[in-house]
Amino acid sequence: MSTYNVSISTTAQKKPKPSQDQVPFGTVFTDHMFMMDYEPEQGWHDPRIVPYAPITLDPAAMIFHYGQTVFEGLKAYRADDGRILLFRPEKNFQRLNQSSDRLSIPPVDEERVLDHLMKLLDIEKDWVPSTEGTSLYIRPFIISTEPNLAVGPSRTYTFMIILSPVGSYFAGGIHPVTIHVEEQFTRATKGGTGMAKTAGNYSSGYQAQANAKKEGNADVLWLDGVEKKYIEEVGSMNIFFKINGEIITPALTGSILKGITRMSIIELLKSWDMPVTERKISIEEVYRAFADGTIEEVFGTGTAAIISPVGELNWQGRKITINNREIGEISQRLYDTITGIQRGKLEDPFGWVVELNENIQSGSNLYSS
Amino acid sequence: MSTYNVSISTTAQKKPKPSQDQVPFGTVFTDHMFMMDYEPEQGWHDPRIVPYAPITLDPAAMIFHYGQTVFEGLKAYRADDGRILLFRPEKNFQRLNQSSDRLSIPPVDEERVLDHLMKLLDIEKDWVPSTEGTSLYIRPFIISTEPNLAVGPSRTYTFMIILSPVGSYFAGGIHPVTIHVEEQFTRATKGGTGMAKTAGNYSSGYQAQANAKKEGNADVLWLDGVEKKYIEEVGSMNIFFKINGEIITPALTGSILKGITRMSIIELLKSWDMPVTERKISIEEVYRAFADGTIEEVFGTGTAAIISPVGELNWQGRKITINNREIGEISQRLYDTITGIQRGKLEDPFGWVVELNENIQSGSNLYSS
Ligand SMILES: Cc1ncc(COP(=O)(O)O)c(C=O)c1O
Ligand SMILES: Cc1ncc(COP(=O)(O)O)c(C=O)c1O
Repeated sequence: MSTYNVSISTTAQKKPKPSQDQVPFGTVFTDHMFMMDYEPEQGWHDPRIVPYAPITLDPAAMIFHYGQTVFEGLKAYRADDGRILLFRPEKNFQRLNQSSDRLSIPPVDEERVLDHLMKLLDIEKDWVPSTEGTSLYIRPFIISTEPNLAVGPSRTYTFMIILSPVGSYFAGGIHPVTIHVEEQFTRATKGGTGMAKTAGNYSSGYQAQANAKKEGNADVLWLDGVEKKYIEEVGSMNIFFKINGEIITPALTGSILKGITRMSIIELLKSWDMPVTERKISIEEVYRAFADGTIEEVFGTGTAAIISPVGELNWQGRKITINNREIGEISQRLYDTITGIQRGKLEDPFGWVVELNENIQSGSNLYSS
Repeated sequence: MSTYNVSISTTAQKKPKPSQDQVPFGTVFTDHMFMMDYEPEQGWHDPRIVPYAPITLDPAAMIFHYGQTVFEGLKAYRADDGRILLFRPEKNFQRLNQSSDRLSIPPVDEERVLDHLMKLLDIEKDWVPSTEGTSLYIRPFIISTEPNLAVGPSRTYTFMIILSPVGSYFAGGIHPVTIHVEEQFTRATKGGTGMAKTAGNYSSGYQAQANAKKEGNADVLWLDGVEKKYIEEVGSMNIFFKINGEIITPALTGSILKGITRMSIIELLKSWDMPVTERKISIEEVYRAFADGTIEEVFGTGTAAIISPVGELNWQGRKITINNREIGEISQRLYDTITGIQRGKLEDPFGWVVELNENIQSGSNLYSS
């Protein structure tokens, strides 16, 4: 195996770590971050681990004007025996490159950036919390940096990875949420950027989410942008239905993010002989199934909460209750299995888990250089 | 009239100005810029003119992750008598606030930011070029700055105005371009952010634009995202058709940017007794009009080029030629009239033009403070 050189400059001034029980989501960052730059002549170059610090950009940098940027989100978990585990991290860098392709951003070397991430994690390993439900959230992202107001792809980019210890997404484990089915606003349409993890897809949902929250909903369920009929996904989660014994999730038709939790659930359920149907599912079908009494479970899936049972749906002023607002059997079993695998408590028959240091390409003696 | 206090710190190190004939678009910036900040407790505060310089942001600043940002684009023109003229700048700040509303960004005081812009222009007036077709491009923009990875509106923002001298958009005046009618990619759909001037709307078009350019097209014409049937707009321009004597432009149905040039053309044509029909227009109707021989003119409209005649359309492999690839009569007359008004060469019966210093709220004696 080759070694990928990364320059490392560590900080002497380490920050105090937050208490494990009171970690706010996404506002505390570790002592170091990873960066590398892109220029057409050199490609991606100068990989470096540096103290976490503000970055400096020209006010004309394209990221501020035309939104050419992509990101990822994954987590490092602390096992009971102290090992640090990642869940299918290669899938995140694959998806990063797929997002970049849509946004005309040059791809990164997936194996190499995974190695860089491992080095960063090795330096920051004390930041991975250990109590139930906590983890170290990993945010890789690429921004376009060329100072140029002409609309078009940037010539230069910066790739960064920042790390943030996060607490339990839901205090006290999973609990069913109420979701508003959005009729007015659209997240994505075929031919748009819905399948890419890019900044503009998120702020475009704020109005709908704020309206939904005002009325007591946890988030919105997006319908397709064309017919406002077929179910797509929730804010940052894919969605699954169990109706009359059939487990269904919307097919990836180009406007839905290809969730790694979604993918893993499909594989897991297959191994349990409970195949998932990936197909179009209309909100009407769901409401009909409620009327029939055939709707059994609804749950969102994503890195943040893994499984988020849906207890209530709210569509056109009509509320339906799923499974008595209780956690469904499949939801609970999936949650226990996936979080069990992620934290090294359960066997990993799929080879999903990657252990820190096991896969690192270059020895830790490099880190003092 | 009230005066709006803005702190001013000027630079001693002025940059050399580019030659008027060789100004590249959007890569040269003036010596100073305007900034102000937003925090919930203080609202927009600390307006200041400072030397043009890089800005510093936390890598977790929301602009890098969730794309919550809006911008504007307008120009300052130098009249033959040396005066500096703006074209309906209040409309740009109105539209900025409309965009901000869609993106959950707090509004700015429109009158006040126009005054701040005037002060900045007064300091930078030597940067406004004078030769035919040149101008000083003005880019106001707002970025979300809170360091927080939780998806949702930022608590803090920075508003900036940067200035860039720009050359003639088309060397040697306007000339007809070839436009590709896009079938695969979608720019916007009703319920999305198409009516807002926000970053994500632009990078999402890069793939389509690159494909179109490879085949010799200047830009793409977007169709509606639902039926891929109705014409919306070009990359950074609205579009007009003259068919059998009727002047038509797509109605603003929520996915199209409300162009200020478009608005002005509608008013101007009305004053000429040539009313514009704002309605749905399908690409099929345009192709039928070509077959009928009733298509007379097609032109794009926007701040960059004002009028950009379309000489050829390319849809599903079928090319049609408009007006023998020549500039149409209305196109030319609109171009001459609007650029004439903008540069103070023609009378301005509409009161569109705002002169620098005429409308400035506080005396220039403040500028030395
Ligand atoms: C829009 C969207 N959908 C779905 C997901 C779930 O994807 P994953 O399971 O990879 O976290 C996410 C979160 O990453 C998301 O942002
Ligand atoms: C998407 C889009 N449409 C249309 C326009 C034309 O608008 P305006 O005439 O205000 O420049 C622009 C440019 O600002 C634009 O970005």
